[in-house]
Amino acid sequence: MSSIKNTNIRLTLPVVCFVWQIAMIILFGVFIRYDEESDTHWVETKAHENITSDIENDFYFRYPSFQDVHVMIFVGFGFLMTFLKRYSFGAVGFNFLIASFGLQWALLMQGWFHSLDPHTGKIYIGVESLINADFCVAGCLIAYGAVLGKVSPVQLLVMTLFGITLFAVEEYIILNLLHARDAGGSMVIHTFGGYYGLAITWVLYRPNLHQSKRMQGSVYHSDAFAMIGTLFLWMFWPSFNSAITDHGDGQHRAAINTYLCLASTVLTTVAISSLSQKTGKLDMVHIQNSTLAGGVALGTAAEFMISPYGALIVGFFCGIISTMGYIFISPFLEKTLKIQDTCGIHNLHAMPGVIGGIVGAITAAAASESVYGKQGLINTFDFTGDFKDRSVLTQGGYQAAGMCVSIVFGVVGGAIVGSILKLPIWGDPADENCFDDEVYWEVREPATHHLLFTIQPLGGAIVFDLVSRDELQSTFERYI
Amino acid sequence: MSSIKNTNIRLTLPVVCFVWQIAMIILFGVFIRYDEESDTHWVETKAHENITSDIENDFYFRYPSFQDVHVMIFVGFGFLMTFLKRYSFGAVGFNFLIASFGLQWALLMQGWFHSLDPHTGKIYIGVESLINADFCVAGCLIAYGAVLGKVSPVQLLVMTLFGITLFAVEEYIILNLLHARDAGGSMVIHTFGGYYGLAITWVLYRPNLHQSKRMQGSVYHSDAFAMIGTLFLWMFWPSFNSAITDHGDGQHRAAINTYLCLASTVLTTVAISSLSQKTGKLDMVHIQNSTLAGGVALGTAAEFMISPYGALIVGFFCGIISTMGYIFISPFLEKTLKIQDTCGIHNLHAMPGVIGGIVGAITAAAASESVYGKQGLINTFDFTGDFKDRSVLTQGGYQAAGMCVSIVFGVVGGAIVGSILKLPIWGDPADENCFDDEVYWEVREPATHHLLFTIQPLGGAIVFDLVSRDELQSTFERYI
Amino acid sequence: MSSIKNTNIRLTLPVVCFVWQIAMIILFGVFIRYDEESDTHWVETKAHENITSDIENDFYFRYPSFQDVHVMIFVGFGFLMTFLKRYSFGAVGFNFLIASFGLQWALLMQGWFHSLDPHTGKIYIGVESLINADFCVAGCLIAYGAVLGKVSPVQLLVMTLFGITLFAVEEYIILNLLHARDAGGSMVIHTFGGYYGLAITWVLYRPNLHQSKRMQGSVYHSDAFAMIGTLFLWMFWPSFNSAITDHGDGQHRAAINTYLCLASTVLTTVAISSLSQKTGKLDMVHIQNSTLAGGVALGTAAEFMISPYGALIVGFFCGIISTMGYIFISPFLEKTLKIQDTCGIHNLHAMPGVIGGIVGAITAAAASESVYGKQGLINTFDFTGDFKDRSVLTQGGYQAAGMCVSIVFGVVGGAIVGSILKLPIWGDPADENCFDDEVYWEVREPATHHLLFTIQPLGGAIVFDLVSRDELQSTFERYI
Repeated sequence: MSSIKNTNIRLTLPVVCFVWQIAMIILFGVFIRYDEESDTHWVETKAHENITSDIENDFYFRYPSFQDVHVMIFVGFGFLMTFLKRYSFGAVGFNFLIASFGLQWALLMQGWFHSLDPHTGKIYIGVESLINADFCVAGCLIAYGAVLGKVSPVQLLVMTLFGITLFAVEEYIILNLLHARDAGGSMVIHTFGGYYGLAITWVLYRPNLHQSKRMQGSVYHSDAFAMIGTLFLWMFWPSFNSAITDHGDGQHRAAINTYLCLASTVLTTVAISSLSQKTGKLDMVHIQNSTLAGGVALGTAAEFMISPYGALIVGFFCGIISTMGYIFISPFLEKTLKIQDTCGIHNLHAMPGVIGGIVGAITAAAASESVYGKQGLINTFDFTGDFKDRSVLTQGGYQAAGMCVSIVFGVVGGAIVGSILKLPIWGDPADENCFDDEVYWEVREPATHHLLFTIQPLGGAIVFDLVSRDELQSTFERYI
Repeated sequence: MSSIKNTNIRLTLPVVCFVWQIAMIILFGVFIRYDEESDTHWVETKAHENITSDIENDFYFRYPSFQDVHVMIFVGFGFLMTFLKRYSFGAVGFNFLIASFGLQWALLMQGWFHSLDPHTGKIYIGVESLINADFCVAGCLIAYGAVLGKVSPVQLLVMTLFGITLFAVEEYIILNLLHARDAGGSMVIHTFGGYYGLAITWVLYRPNLHQSKRMQGSVYHSDAFAMIGTLFLWMFWPSFNSAITDHGDGQHRAAINTYLCLASTVLTTVAISSLSQKTGKLDMVHIQNSTLAGGVALGTAAEFMISPYGALIVGFFCGIISTMGYIFISPFLEKTLKIQDTCGIHNLHAMPGVIGGIVGAITAAAASESVYGKQGLINTFDFTGDFKDRSVLTQGGYQAAGMCVSIVFGVVGGAIVGSILKLPIWGDPADENCFDDEVYWEVREPATHHLLFTIQPLGGAIVFDLVSRDELQSTFERYI
Repeated sequence: MSSIKNTNIRLTLPVVCFVWQIAMIILFGVFIRYDEESDTHWVETKAHENITSDIENDFYFRYPSFQDVHVMIFVGFGFLMTFLKRYSFGAVGFNFLIASFGLQWALLMQGWFHSLDPHTGKIYIGVESLINADFCVAGCLIAYGAVLGKVSPVQLLVMTLFGITLFAVEEYIILNLLHARDAGGSMVIHTFGGYYGLAITWVLYRPNLHQSKRMQGSVYHSDAFAMIGTLFLWMFWPSFNSAITDHGDGQHRAAINTYLCLASTVLTTVAISSLSQKTGKLDMVHIQNSTLAGGVALGTAAEFMISPYGALIVGFFCGIISTMGYIFISPFLEKTLKIQDTCGIHNLHAMPGVIGGIVGAITAAAASESVYGKQGLINTFDFTGDFKDRSVLTQGGYQAAGMCVSIVFGVVGGAIVGSILKLPIWGDPADENCFDDEVYWEVREPATHHLLFTIQPLGGAIVFDLVSRDELQSTFERYI
């Protein structure tokens, strides 16, 4: 055994959970209030603004999409990471913990940056805030994918605290200062989250990770299980990319584009996966992950008039690039750049995110009144207020600038946070205990099964019963 | 073997299913009709009531929430109970059976009590009726959690018949006579369902249940599987608590409150779970169950102006109390009070339900016009008609009274129904066969695997193939 | 080994995927555009048509139902087929591939037949088009159920290409020429898809299929896993049958009817399943499949005023007939008619589909102004334009005619396509390798586990560790 590490988190984990939850309660008490559509005064707002029906409450525009996004965050991301043979608890359970903490902190951070009322000093939240909080959490869950199995839950919470903070700042710069559009978060969520995670795992490089190689793979059932995550992400991605776009045609178009793009991605993923094996067999890793790259890459442009065939083209190339990433780039990153990326987030989020940013910039720069209509162009790019005279070419430039901001925040932020996580106080596992749920979870049944048999010569063969350790014990107690 | 029990249900189960389904058809034929929003005459209703758009049909306000609730009932409750190593079929399958029967009976019972038209003698149903029927079924599914693995499907159907009946009566008393508010059913659903199940399992106490101890636990995969149930319950709980609240701000606010409360619960559940083990490891039982307690506890107050930080506080304490319940109270209940509660529904539903009732009473009593607005207060507490002069303090008192009604109905009803279920005619399993799917299901692959091997001395070790009984048989037939 | 087959698809699969995806891009570029509700010009449309609120965009009427249908297609159909012990990857993965290709081709085919604008030569798509594309794909996924485990992915893609094409034509004949109503597709989707698959598997009959008998069954975990598919299909079927019905009462009523019908089906399925075994045990195959038959059978009549008890009656008989189908008809079909129907689609789709068509015809013929109202009758059956003078009796006749069209298209189309698939160029598996994921997938862990043990005489028994082949290998490398 190369190292002895203390993975006891009985002090740190409860303390961190309690301190942060109490801090959340205090800060929510000071800052967070219902917005006018979720407050009992809505009846007065309606009268005042001549709203004739409750159905015009933003709840009915966005709640179905919110719930789809919610499923993606908790079931999608969580189960996608259960592919490892003995890390299902950590995958689903820590994902659950990160997201639950992260969404609270996100409501505060995004509130301070985007919607703090200067007069009352309060943040007013509604269903759109919940969606944005879930989005913000997605960035940290992406980063989790890079370090899956190699960090302690305390490290994950620290990573989330800083991740959400960085997210809110880069989002403010990209969406508010640069006035870039990024409804589905190709840049803000996926590029940032991807590079944030990659930089952290780069700093936390474990040269002896091969010592837990026995645990670092999938088995048949865990691969099938992970498809639950893949499919819920894939199916609900149209909701992800349309959840906060403009009411009406904005949401409608974003959903259609994403639906088409993802369908196209599946076909090219299958094609490349099949090409990569001698007999054309498919690799589950590609199907689980690369099929989703199209959703990432359409995050920025989903609400634009990219046109149905444009969406198909984006998906076409994303499937190819992402699958090739798993085949060629991931091994290169690990060997040469010392980046150990457990889930391959570089191929699923970082690269497709960058593609999405570029697609967004080009599509924006190519927008025209003839395609969008005069008012349509203004609505889509929000050319109002300070930005009413911005040209589409300028907009394209700002989109590209936003792209760079998200990469810089990811890489630099990740490197700094990685250094903090490197401190020997967080209870991370030893190199030979990575990817193993038994480190942080009470596991009733051990990874190895025990077998009890009595030799019954039966046609030259022997019949066994497969039993758990407990059953073995109790059998002994009964008979011996 | 301590007892020989006849678990043959080939007569009773089909007879009960057929008789009840035929009864349902007859009663539906006599009583149930479409309401005006689901009837083809809606086109006339629209004209008559000056409704300008089909989007104002209640369907569009409630159907997305209905589907979320539906998922909770069938996937959420069903999969949550699959944690046992060999009771997945019973968990998901009997849950499916109970719910499918229960919802039909609920439409009738709730219809008779709440919406029987005195002129026509008919019950008119729409999407809200479906949600209420699903809610009603939830009470019985909670009770199933207490007796999971120890009863026959026939007993479950009898338990459901009486459970739905009692539910409709207590609900009528609480919501209509006492005019208490309980949109998410902390009292009506969770407290009632919890105590109903606990009283039944108390009556059905099995002193020799330890004889099936080998089956009464989880294995790695079944624990991961149960997280499907946990997550779908957790994610959709905001829909549960907002499904039948007032249109507009009512639904909006209930969803926000529940979302926040549940996030907070996760953190304190993790903290207490980690504290409970020597090295700070987490226990899957807590993560699977206690993380949901916040949703239960906000069932009454979700639609009130409890404020975002108030929701966080409720979740904070519920996570602590529910997890402590699993650690300290469940063993006490089993040893001292002889209550064998398979799923720990006392910790997940009964206690948090009572907390929810209390929180609701306090929040109602503390409501004020300054916070709610004059009309908002009237809308939220439905201070109209006979109740237009009720004060918030009085309302708080009636809320507390409702709480008591639900407990009494649960305990007394459960004790009576338990006595009926104790009759030796229902085909329940023997003590040593509890928690085993093979009693009521054709199981193709036995719980113990059989192994075929030929000794191949290979570096001092032997290589085996794990095969099923069938494969073993066919191998013999081929070679011998 | 009876036959040597070349299952290398490294050339064919990538080529087919690339060629078809590129064809899709070109055809989409030529033909497909956003419709007016998903185009940025919607702001002008609104002004022009005096639409006051974005909430009247069709997106908000149909998107929640669309997402439910989407889940049925990818998770429902996919996981339902994971019941086989070693075909989870093929079940979920090929389902994913078929659906992703099929929906693109369906948008084109359905567009050309139903909504090609004669002036512009374009097809304008919106959320309803996406639902219809998913529906169209469902027909092919049903057919996949008949040939599950016995065909290559290339065959599946060819089957889908022709299946979608045939679907669009029969749909055009039934819905447009005959003007039959079939919102949930009892005829158009289920009857067609069922007979299409049965005819194909009949042509592809494998007399030596028993050679892979060891793989052709379920194990405990795969049966539990398949219930994910069952439940998501069951829960969201109300959305399936109401997704494209009329706004308002049409969608509302279709959801209620389907909800009730399915509940009823569960009870009679359980009853018959229990009756079929000596001791009344339940069979998972029935619960997984027959519980869904009610949804199929109400596909045509769901939007009609069939009345709540009518829906229960349909479900009552469907549960009985479908379960009996699994017990009696499937073995007969296999032995006598040489139809090897892996998933029993005859019992779940073909028969219930025909029942649905008949129920639809009878309900239509029995419709009356007294029940529907004058305008309600016109709306429900779309008695406008060329059909404004059609009587309900005539309508019933055309419904029945539609039924026959779907059967003919299924049987004849399937026989022809089956003959094409019989060509020895598609890389299908040998008889002894059917139902085995290892043929088309990289499987890290083999179907048989390998066991390492050292004999430790411990009270007369021996203790083993169950390890994978890789672990075995690495252990050897370490110790020997």
